[in-house]
Amino acid sequence: MRRRPRAVLKRTKTILQINTDTDGMALALEWAAKGMYITAPNPRVGCVIVRDGEVIGAGHTQPAGQAHAEIQALRDAAARGNDVRGATAYVTLEPCSHYGRTPPCSNALVEAGLKRVVAAMGDPNPLVAGRGMAQLQAAGIETVSGVLADAAHELNIGFFSRMRRGRPWVRLKSAASLDGFTALENGESQWITGPEARADGHAWRARACVILTGIGTVKADDPQLTVRGVATPRQPRRVIVDSRLEIDPGARILQGEPCWIVAAAPSPGKEAALRAAGHEVILLPGVGNSAGGKVDLAALMLELGRREINEVHVEAGSKLNASLVREGCVDELLVYLAPSLIGAGQGMFALPAPGSLADKITLRFHAVTQVGSDLRILARFNPI
Amino acid sequence: MRRRPRAVLKRTKTILQINTDTDGMALALEWAAKGMYITAPNPRVGCVIVRDGEVIGAGHTQPAGQAHAEIQALRDAAARGNDVRGATAYVTLEPCSHYGRTPPCSNALVEAGLKRVVAAMGDPNPLVAGRGMAQLQAAGIETVSGVLADAAHELNIGFFSRMRRGRPWVRLKSAASLDGFTALENGESQWITGPEARADGHAWRARACVILTGIGTVKADDPQLTVRGVATPRQPRRVIVDSRLEIDPGARILQGEPCWIVAAAPSPGKEAALRAAGHEVILLPGVGNSAGGKVDLAALMLELGRREINEVHVEAGSKLNASLVREGCVDELLVYLAPSLIGAGQGMFALPAPGSLADKITLRFHAVTQVGSDLRILARFNPI
Repeated sequence: MRRRPRAVLKRTKTILQINTDTDGMALALEWAAKGMYITAPNPRVGCVIVRDGEVIGAGHTQPAGQAHAEIQALRDAAARGNDVRGATAYVTLEPCSHYGRTPPCSNALVEAGLKRVVAAMGDPNPLVAGRGMAQLQAAGIETVSGVLADAAHELNIGFFSRMRRGRPWVRLKSAASLDGFTALENGESQWITGPEARADGHAWRARACVILTGIGTVKADDPQLTVRGVATPRQPRRVIVDSRLEIDPGARILQGEPCWIVAAAPSPGKEAALRAAGHEVILLPGVGNSAGGKVDLAALMLELGRREINEVHVEAGSKLNASLVREGCVDELLVYLAPSLIGAGQGMFALPAPGSLADKITLRFHAVTQVGSDLRILARFNPI
Repeated sequence: MRRRPRAVLKRTKTILQINTDTDGMALALEWAAKGMYITAPNPRVGCVIVRDGEVIGAGHTQPAGQAHAEIQALRDAAARGNDVRGATAYVTLEPCSHYGRTPPCSNALVEAGLKRVVAAMGDPNPLVAGRGMAQLQAAGIETVSGVLADAAHELNIGFFSRMRRGRPWVRLKSAASLDGFTALENGESQWITGPEARADGHAWRARACVILTGIGTVKADDPQLTVRGVATPRQPRRVIVDSRLEIDPGARILQGEPCWIVAAAPSPGKEAALRAAGHEVILLPGVGNSAGGKVDLAALMLELGRREINEVHVEAGSKLNASLVREGCVDELLVYLAPSLIGAGQGMFALPAPGSLADKITLRFHAVTQVGSDLRILARFNPI
């Protein structure tokens, strides 16, 4: 982050002449992505200020409570002695118009004397929702919206999910052989995929606000579920679904940063011990489909939304995976498929056999990429 | 085929100015692909003749015993009144230099007065193997080899397999849900993939010389295993692995063109009945690993090679699939993966559970394409 102005200068010299709104927004999206691991619960936003085709300022959202992208870009321009009057600002999300943790960015853009503001998309935050662009227009600034909107939406899919549905975007990660096995029957699973896919998986962990697992995985694998091998200033919160509060206080996942442990019934002694160790116990007894002493997973997702969780990254076993899917709690599968055949072992989802193929669960493929020697498949249940 | 000269003229007008050898070879490969379903056991070869950047003749290999691509292209040029003297010929495979079912193409190219011949790759046929290019050089023709060789190799991968290894290229097709199931436990499998993937599967059937299945699939599904929905003048031979010769003479697969039925032990009465119905029974008792009353699958592949079979398309159940893989008889998997979860059912390969992950069977992903709403994955065991 400290080398930002130099990076801009370098890009300006080597690549950049911003000739179209698409060019400008593509660069603003690159800036937004620099905030991938730090802005939550705020969205990752980038801003690039352009005059006569030249980038004269750029920035991205800082951690919550600090400057938004627009302010960073204006400060960058000022630090470099650039006059932004009459320039165009490209922002990957409609500028905020309300006093939150920071003052409204729309005010700052008006005061700076910008001529044009191009936004990738409107802010679904009900506190903004068009008011940012309207305020700019009222001040005589030309506005454009909808440039590279799909890419901007992807970057903050969790924030938009929380704003629109009150719950996070839930991404369930699995790694399997081409014939669908995640582990041998004895649990051996290290390694089905290659090192590149495993590193890629850590980058997906890093962008999430929460890494969610179940007591079964904690018992079987005793994982840490931390981000390793990817530089991030912030570790996602680990959340363990543990209906009967069976977790061993010595589990590795409990030794680091505080966790949230989600149980279905009170268990005062165990709860007290976990709290004494710095963890939080959340009680969410199941109802309806998820009754029977189990955590209400849909209620958990709403609770995570209330806690300003944008993206949830699930790494769990086939039972919790299946429960999450059956209870409509998963938005996206992140499946690493290895070019191998195992033949027998544990599957991805312990779903009950359907009575007919018409009862299969359907998704749609969103993106497929080769990562090392493996495939990374993103498949989605429903668009938001 | 009948509209070929017009198609060339149209391309010439709308797209084509051949400025590089790569341009010329890319067009020759398009011509080669027009012979996809008709040239076996010969390779699919295309030839384009270019002078001053203009395509003056083009053609592709005709059915065995008829003209090869070079002859077709020379005839096309003549029919259009074009003089080929001094021109360059692009051929997707080294011109043949021997008298087979037709006279050598190298002679024809020399006699026609071509100045240059560019070949995508040498012909591994031991009857050619460099002699074609050498003969052209000896006649004073400039030659180049190795332009777009990979694409040319793909087009005739079965022919090359047979020339180099004495056995066909074996492609095993499967269609599964994202979690790896090909059917429900009760056998219901219609349909896991969508209509586009099923049509694509018929195109892969059409290019094969043989469609191979097992008695289990014949009993369970009573399939025809013919090419439908793809225009082809030739149906691939159906081959049924039926170790104990259990096939019902009323099976649908036996009602059309003659089949080859492969058994492990003689069964004179049944054999006679099948032969009387026009089918052939091939006896290949298992030895070593494939003993125990089962067909020797590796011997079957060699037998198919002897019968000039270039590409084998396998559509079988999980047992024969697994036997073929375990006995090293499969070169490539063609897997259609649907964006769905089934949870329980029949898998792709009924392989025994490995003792350790180190014992998993490894492939490499060769190509992944979205076909309709499904993925088509080509994964290969070993390069040839």
